[in-house]
Amino acid sequence: MEDRILLAHGSGGELSHELIEKYFVPLFKNPLLDKLDDAAVFKLSGRLAFTTDSYVVNPIFFPGGDIGTLAVCGTVNDLAMSGANPIYLSLSLIIEEGFLLPDLKKVMISVQRAAEEANIKIVTGDTKVVNRGKADKLFINTAGIGLVPPGVAISGSGAKPGDKVILSGTIGEHGIAVMSQREGLQFSVPVESDCAPLNKLVLEMLEAGHSIHCLRDPTRGGLAGALNELARQSRVGINIEEDMIPVQDAILAACELLGFDPLYMANEGKLVAVVPAADTEKVLDKMRHNEYGTRSAIIGEVVAEHSGRVVMTTRFGTSRIVDMLVGELLPRIC
Amino acid sequence: MEDRILLAHGSGGELSHELIEKYFVPLFKNPLLDKLDDAAVFKLSGRLAFTTDSYVVNPIFFPGGDIGTLAVCGTVNDLAMSGANPIYLSLSLIIEEGFLLPDLKKVMISVQRAAEEANIKIVTGDTKVVNRGKADKLFINTAGIGLVPPGVAISGSGAKPGDKVILSGTIGEHGIAVMSQREGLQFSVPVESDCAPLNKLVLEMLEAGHSIHCLRDPTRGGLAGALNELARQSRVGINIEEDMIPVQDAILAACELLGFDPLYMANEGKLVAVVPAADTEKVLDKMRHNEYGTRSAIIGEVVAEHSGRVVMTTRFGTSRIVDMLVGELLPRIC
Repeated sequence: MEDRILLAHGSGGELSHELIEKYFVPLFKNPLLDKLDDAAVFKLSGRLAFTTDSYVVNPIFFPGGDIGTLAVCGTVNDLAMSGANPIYLSLSLIIEEGFLLPDLKKVMISVQRAAEEANIKIVTGDTKVVNRGKADKLFINTAGIGLVPPGVAISGSGAKPGDKVILSGTIGEHGIAVMSQREGLQFSVPVESDCAPLNKLVLEMLEAGHSIHCLRDPTRGGLAGALNELARQSRVGINIEEDMIPVQDAILAACELLGFDPLYMANEGKLVAVVPAADTEKVLDKMRHNEYGTRSAIIGEVVAEHSGRVVMTTRFGTSRIVDMLVGELLPRIC
Repeated sequence: MEDRILLAHGSGGELSHELIEKYFVPLFKNPLLDKLDDAAVFKLSGRLAFTTDSYVVNPIFFPGGDIGTLAVCGTVNDLAMSGANPIYLSLSLIIEEGFLLPDLKKVMISVQRAAEEANIKIVTGDTKVVNRGKADKLFINTAGIGLVPPGVAISGSGAKPGDKVILSGTIGEHGIAVMSQREGLQFSVPVESDCAPLNKLVLEMLEAGHSIHCLRDPTRGGLAGALNELARQSRVGINIEEDMIPVQDAILAACELLGFDPLYMANEGKLVAVVPAADTEKVLDKMRHNEYGTRSAIIGEVVAEHSGRVVMTTRFGTSRIVDMLVGELLPRIC
């Protein structure tokens, strides 16, 4: 039994302290966390970005990452979508009694690696344990604090008619990778989640000028969801071209087989940028030089017509309204 | 079925947006939240405190509060224990499919009321839904940001021999209230959770001078856990007197009946302060004038001997080592 999580690991007593000292402090070591006070205290000044997400992905390990990678990248990316440099992260676990400690360690190593890549420090945390059957293995919450550089003003409500819509790469990998793992599906070409921290990509995009109007990562709800949110928040229409949206062949094949539309599949390492037409090439050039943006492309533009709606010109030249997702495609995708 | 949470409420699609617009935005309305961007962006400068907790209390409604009250007060109190004034809060929900929407509304009203009392603004959030049986009704995570006033230097490692240990009131109510609700126990005198935001109490204590060395809220692990943490972090011994620790008669009776020790019972509206002897009366006076500190008392002192240990003089005049909790007394108490 000693290689499994016990209820007492969440008691606030001896075993809780042992868990913290053994599994968290050595991996995330930093002066703020090491104090083990109720809150981390640090000096910070300027425009801060603050965001949170809970991660309930099933299964917790999938091709290209795990719930730990996701919990860091997802929150880092939400900060980056405000143009912020990620600084501090909180990490809170809800663990099911009986969860394997070696699995916890694997996930924590993923957290540490992703945090290191994103250059964000884990400074505060919490662990709760619930009885067997009252949670599914492991849920993680992270909250992040970032600093928005002066002059940056990115918001979902900033899109203007005439702006171009850029997508940073192929869509659908995360959704298909998690689903294939869950269902035990095998594809001839292996599909991996695109899970990645995008803060450096955003930093480089901002070096091309501070004129980016909107950034959004097309996670749950997919590209369709992200574009619909931007169209609604900015009270504009968005036109996209199906032909211009990059999708890997394996993802297209999997989607066709399973009856999914890649537009609604979750991504965890992609972003959509709305940029004034004049700056588009400069921003695209920066993006294509970053490892996470090599396949960046202009996929459409912002228009004054059909406010709040996304319209796609299909491969056949017809027009199709791309609605927000109705119902649920893939529960627990992130 | 329309009065229950569906998987689609967590999809990032239409139903997610409906839930946010109907249940969260009207209650928590503020300019930062209303933007509905991936992160809230605000100006803040100084020494910040940052903390997080996940709440998995079972049952979610209990005498004196619910999981919503707890999720705000717990995190507000962790900020307050650093001497920080709470400013911004994140709110992240993991909901079990089938959870009743009227119950969600009740919990959100509790969140709103507690946030209002603590003067903290909910500026960012997240909602995930998991399949029936994969979580137990509702888990909540909050993360909080506060501002530490200049000159305040409170830490678990600050206790010094000669300091006095003050407790802000009676212990054990939260633990007994939740447990009695869970087990369907009835006591002749009704027991209510002490769940309350302590930030104003701390603010008033700091008005008596900035010399408070440590603050800690005795939640999971109880008073025994909090004192042991302080003794370890500060590398000092702590002596307490059983006679001086206030406990309500109903709690004492319940503990005797059930074989619990009130020293290990969770509290959600109490704090322990370690204060230089010379300032004790000034701080106590401030505490007793606050509604959450009327029964504040000196319960012991910090000594140079038996470093890392807590020793209690019992009612019978004997000495007893008060260890940290070993094992788990009451799972899912917060």
